[in-house]
Amino acid sequence: MSGNSYGKIFKVTTFGESHGRAIGVIVDGVPANIDIDVEKIQYDLDRRRPGQSRVSTARKESDKVEILSGVFEGKSTGTPIAMAIFNEDQLSKDYSNIAELFRPGHADYTFFKKYGIRDYRGGGRSSGRETAARVAAGAIAKMALAKVGVSIVAWVGQVGPIICQSHDESEIENNIMRAPDPVAAADMEKYVVKAKKDGDSCGGVVECRIRGLEAGLGEPVFDKLDAKLAQAALSIGTVKGIEFGAGFKVAEMYGSQNNDEITASGFKSNNSGGILGGISNGDEVVFRIAVKPTASIYKKQTTVDQNNVEQKFLIKGRHDPCICPRVVPVIEAMSAITVFDLYLRNKLSRM
Amino acid sequence: MSGNSYGKIFKVTTFGESHGRAIGVIVDGVPANIDIDVEKIQYDLDRRRPGQSRVSTARKESDKVEILSGVFEGKSTGTPIAMAIFNEDQLSKDYSNIAELFRPGHADYTFFKKYGIRDYRGGGRSSGRETAARVAAGAIAKMALAKVGVSIVAWVGQVGPIICQSHDESEIENNIMRAPDPVAAADMEKYVVKAKKDGDSCGGVVECRIRGLEAGLGEPVFDKLDAKLAQAALSIGTVKGIEFGAGFKVAEMYGSQNNDEITASGFKSNNSGGILGGISNGDEVVFRIAVKPTASIYKKQTTVDQNNVEQKFLIKGRHDPCICPRVVPVIEAMSAITVFDLYLRNKLSRM
Amino acid sequence: MSGNSYGKIFKVTTFGESHGRAIGVIVDGVPANIDIDVEKIQYDLDRRRPGQSRVSTARKESDKVEILSGVFEGKSTGTPIAMAIFNEDQLSKDYSNIAELFRPGHADYTFFKKYGIRDYRGGGRSSGRETAARVAAGAIAKMALAKVGVSIVAWVGQVGPIICQSHDESEIENNIMRAPDPVAAADMEKYVVKAKKDGDSCGGVVECRIRGLEAGLGEPVFDKLDAKLAQAALSIGTVKGIEFGAGFKVAEMYGSQNNDEITASGFKSNNSGGILGGISNGDEVVFRIAVKPTASIYKKQTTVDQNNVEQKFLIKGRHDPCICPRVVPVIEAMSAITVFDLYLRNKLSRM
Amino acid sequence: MSGNSYGKIFKVTTFGESHGRAIGVIVDGVPANIDIDVEKIQYDLDRRRPGQSRVSTARKESDKVEILSGVFEGKSTGTPIAMAIFNEDQLSKDYSNIAELFRPGHADYTFFKKYGIRDYRGGGRSSGRETAARVAAGAIAKMALAKVGVSIVAWVGQVGPIICQSHDESEIENNIMRAPDPVAAADMEKYVVKAKKDGDSCGGVVECRIRGLEAGLGEPVFDKLDAKLAQAALSIGTVKGIEFGAGFKVAEMYGSQNNDEITASGFKSNNSGGILGGISNGDEVVFRIAVKPTASIYKKQTTVDQNNVEQKFLIKGRHDPCICPRVVPVIEAMSAITVFDLYLRNKLSRM
Repeated sequence: MSGNSYGKIFKVTTFGESHGRAIGVIVDGVPANIDIDVEKIQYDLDRRRPGQSRVSTARKESDKVEILSGVFEGKSTGTPIAMAIFNEDQLSKDYSNIAELFRPGHADYTFFKKYGIRDYRGGGRSSGRETAARVAAGAIAKMALAKVGVSIVAWVGQVGPIICQSHDESEIENNIMRAPDPVAAADMEKYVVKAKKDGDSCGGVVECRIRGLEAGLGEPVFDKLDAKLAQAALSIGTVKGIEFGAGFKVAEMYGSQNNDEITASGFKSNNSGGILGGISNGDEVVFRIAVKPTASIYKKQTTVDQNNVEQKFLIKGRHDPCICPRVVPVIEAMSAITVFDLYLRNKLSRM
Repeated sequence: MSGNSYGKIFKVTTFGESHGRAIGVIVDGVPANIDIDVEKIQYDLDRRRPGQSRVSTARKESDKVEILSGVFEGKSTGTPIAMAIFNEDQLSKDYSNIAELFRPGHADYTFFKKYGIRDYRGGGRSSGRETAARVAAGAIAKMALAKVGVSIVAWVGQVGPIICQSHDESEIENNIMRAPDPVAAADMEKYVVKAKKDGDSCGGVVECRIRGLEAGLGEPVFDKLDAKLAQAALSIGTVKGIEFGAGFKVAEMYGSQNNDEITASGFKSNNSGGILGGISNGDEVVFRIAVKPTASIYKKQTTVDQNNVEQKFLIKGRHDPCICPRVVPVIEAMSAITVFDLYLRNKLSRM
Repeated sequence: MSGNSYGKIFKVTTFGESHGRAIGVIVDGVPANIDIDVEKIQYDLDRRRPGQSRVSTARKESDKVEILSGVFEGKSTGTPIAMAIFNEDQLSKDYSNIAELFRPGHADYTFFKKYGIRDYRGGGRSSGRETAARVAAGAIAKMALAKVGVSIVAWVGQVGPIICQSHDESEIENNIMRAPDPVAAADMEKYVVKAKKDGDSCGGVVECRIRGLEAGLGEPVFDKLDAKLAQAALSIGTVKGIEFGAGFKVAEMYGSQNNDEITASGFKSNNSGGILGGISNGDEVVFRIAVKPTASIYKKQTTVDQNNVEQKFLIKGRHDPCICPRVVPVIEAMSAITVFDLYLRNKLSRM
Repeated sequence: MSGNSYGKIFKVTTFGESHGRAIGVIVDGVPANIDIDVEKIQYDLDRRRPGQSRVSTARKESDKVEILSGVFEGKSTGTPIAMAIFNEDQLSKDYSNIAELFRPGHADYTFFKKYGIRDYRGGGRSSGRETAARVAAGAIAKMALAKVGVSIVAWVGQVGPIICQSHDESEIENNIMRAPDPVAAADMEKYVVKAKKDGDSCGGVVECRIRGLEAGLGEPVFDKLDAKLAQAALSIGTVKGIEFGAGFKVAEMYGSQNNDEITASGFKSNNSGGILGGISNGDEVVFRIAVKPTASIYKKQTTVDQNNVEQKFLIKGRHDPCICPRVVPVIEAMSAITVFDLYLRNKLSRM
């Protein structure tokens, strides 16, 4: 049973391979009469697409989205919104050097073990390119959430050892690192360019905030707000960890430090990250994700082929030395999809 | 739409409140002809139940499980296995001091905001007691997984500032902290007892390993093995973060350090935590979870009542000063449920 | 993947075997704050239970329902409502004459082929007894539907060749056939008693009406109101067909006869059975189901055993010569569950 | 929560409106390594498309299918297979005469009541055109089923009062009525042409057989084989009833007539329609569906507009005087989807 769908009511199903005819998505469960602005969808896709800057891959793809159904006269009709991004460059390149090899850090090995067959042109279905479909779906969720006052913002908080020291969200889209601290951003950029020159890649931390959520979102027991955000985040290929509010620091805290006392004007602190018992408490939702260094590096690596024979090989093509800035719109999209689904689910708590 | 069910094929639905008639679970999708040993279910429940030691709550409950259906002559029949644990002590205690108050760190506030009504006797549905139902379901999953060579083990790796320095899994059940390092365990115990005396509570880190998994488990795109384990872990009330393999350390690693090269005899390292592209690679699955200090402490706290009037109050009753040792069987159970569901789903990858 | 659950938002999962410890149900997705009256649940169970009259089986079971969770101070809390009916008579009778035989018309053969194991004591999971759990769940749905003005009524419209000629719904519960025509009811009763004396059984037609539905219920394309009612009806073991509105008569009608014209005060006719394009149109929903004669008869029959060896055998025990009167509360329950689920789903059509 | 998806493991999600950019489908859960022959998909689409003969609509659409993903070198890869049929004629015709009117027998009224907005160009989402997407998905299911020896055939058994008297399946595709009796087919054709001349339409009965099914398909309790086939059939807009095996005739049968006795070489009769307790028994699955006369007729009809003002109006455009021959590939497709999903689900009954 496949995992290509996400969400129970606001339901997103993506399709497509990196080098196939198209990638796309069906967004189902969109309530009728929501204004759908294709420019806003394209805006988020442009933030995710390759070739934006020297810290992202040099590949150029326009990632132009096309709406195939579900929108009539600029409004959702309640029927499924299908969107497609046709792949521009489907030239049959020479993949012979990797067709039979499993690239370390990639899903080549596991897809082959799972299915006994794989589309070896690029990552196929496991390519980061699939996230474009999520970003398109997330843009729909954002438009719906905006109607009820919810906004989502993410940024790069750390790259390698460089951690943001100041916080000005108006700076995020002003630097190619998508960091809220322009000084740190400049250092991050240098750090990434250096890694790139070394044929290497580097990781980081992306932070996300969800604002304007009413108290009550998240479903006890298994579909808690944090549980679903965790699934959403870890479903992004490069993410290796997530923490909410005080996060891993809770291990060293006492209950008397960690509990957020409640006053008539709200919570005194936000160690919980805006979530109590898996349900939003009306405070800002806060989480951080660990982003691993891109698996595609320009250093000779050891691997095996489909016959389990060891090979030394060198990856070709153009890849991101640090994927963090492009993860930002993806985690926003996944958060928006998650939160809007839980928003709709919460409408059912009372009759 | 509720979140009381988990799993797509091996599907677990729990019910019950801490102070209701019973808690329990329906385990659906159990293949026919699996040996069901009620003693093994009880064994895991005993590891989870309160009153085990001086680092857990002094409440005594026998948590005796009863199988209501789905098992015939010691074997699963393919029909739903319903299990119930009847609550022994349903005496209507005096809850008047908390009936209208929202305890900090608990779900009282958010349940009330969500439903407009709540069972104020203890945590009701949000009580940690609900996890007994999960442990019973997890025991079924473990029995099925054992048939295909999969085992799961978890332990307490850190409490407060104390981190295990040695690793001997045969020690885990020999100390009340469930730590694989007996020296650290002794220190942890002192640390917890001290916190308890101070009317406080403390947090920690629990680690989990899943062994014997064949390559191929986990469903691209949204139901990746790590994504579902993350949901499973964060669905436990006290968990605030999760990381796989190298975890948050990836932020400071280069790709050349983080990639696990592949040799004819397997992976050279396991920074991935046994998961590539969201699919098990045949290596050990490794993850850690952050456990917050118990919210119930014996210090005066500020909160509001249902009319948003501020109150100072003191929690009564008996509570765990450190929940980590009791989280161990719960994360094992959630991992078992997750992995067995993905095991069954993977059977469908090929015809 | 099992089929023990029904409904997407208002979700019913039944468990239990005819001769196991208990049968029961988890009703999930009940909105908070609905008055739950256990007497109303018991009332419907009493209409379904065996031993009501001489046209039903002589077995006596009190079918006393017990609520285990989800109700606090007489109201739903939004958490799962678990209910159990403990089986009174679990004496290990002598089943040796049927343990290895597949009774014609029963699910013995197919369960064994499917699972390779079966609980041979009575019908096990395939027993009509399982429907008691559905009736309990349906009673909850009825209580919720009553709040929004929806009512459901079913009756026996035909038994063998005897068809009701008059229609007075106040008569339905006044005769043991549950027919709205007391004259036909008397004839039906004679017909059934005659069949019983002959060691035989007989079939019939049950009709159902759903009233007070607002226009808009039912989800286009696959979860149309009629599609889901059809699934609901055919999920009852004895049902072999369903038709809506004009039903199979449409085969001989012209479009100009069958179309229901619309006037300012509503539809001129109701050939559609209150459903257009799979969505309720505000008119009465009308359907009929074909109920087969009970498979358990007291005549010597030919069958095979588990080794495919032919056997002549005679069924023992007490069985219904005509199940129609007991199908009435079951189809009401399944309709209520279906309609309430679609009612909640329809709340999501607009934001 | 929308109803645009069908199937639990083999999962079909359709999208698109009759006059939008495209209609299409994502077929998810296709096991890897199945040969996908686009010609076979096109063959079934050609059997469904308009303009085939003088008993179907005169509209011409080529309904050319395009595979967007999930197939690599002629084989399924285990990833979602997306297919699209781009609409050729999207000219903005003049819909002013029906934009505000609810056509009797159509879903115009109910879609508007449900969503408060509708795509008034043709049927929009409720158009029969949507079934092309199902046929494409069904063709995939048929290819997979063929691998395990399952075949499905449907035909027109009755139109108006004309009922097939002979049965030769090789005749079905030889006449424009898709009837297995060429004499009856000729009469049916005359009957339909007469209705068409009168500006009217007519209904009929379509029969379907599923062959080669192993015993064991269908999931107790709610997802029985007949229950899911009933949902599948009734999800087709023109279908008003379904019956299995002896069908509505069971009302007048005795148990001794209706039970199918079992011999060492199989069942003596097939009154059950190949299904016992909702599970296939290895015999042929047999069912019939009632097809209503097309709602679009060329006679003046009464209806209301969006302001509930009565209007007399006349439908324009080209429509099918009898939809039965075009329902044949649709019911085959829905049966194939249903049966293949249950085939995969049945693989999970045992470990």
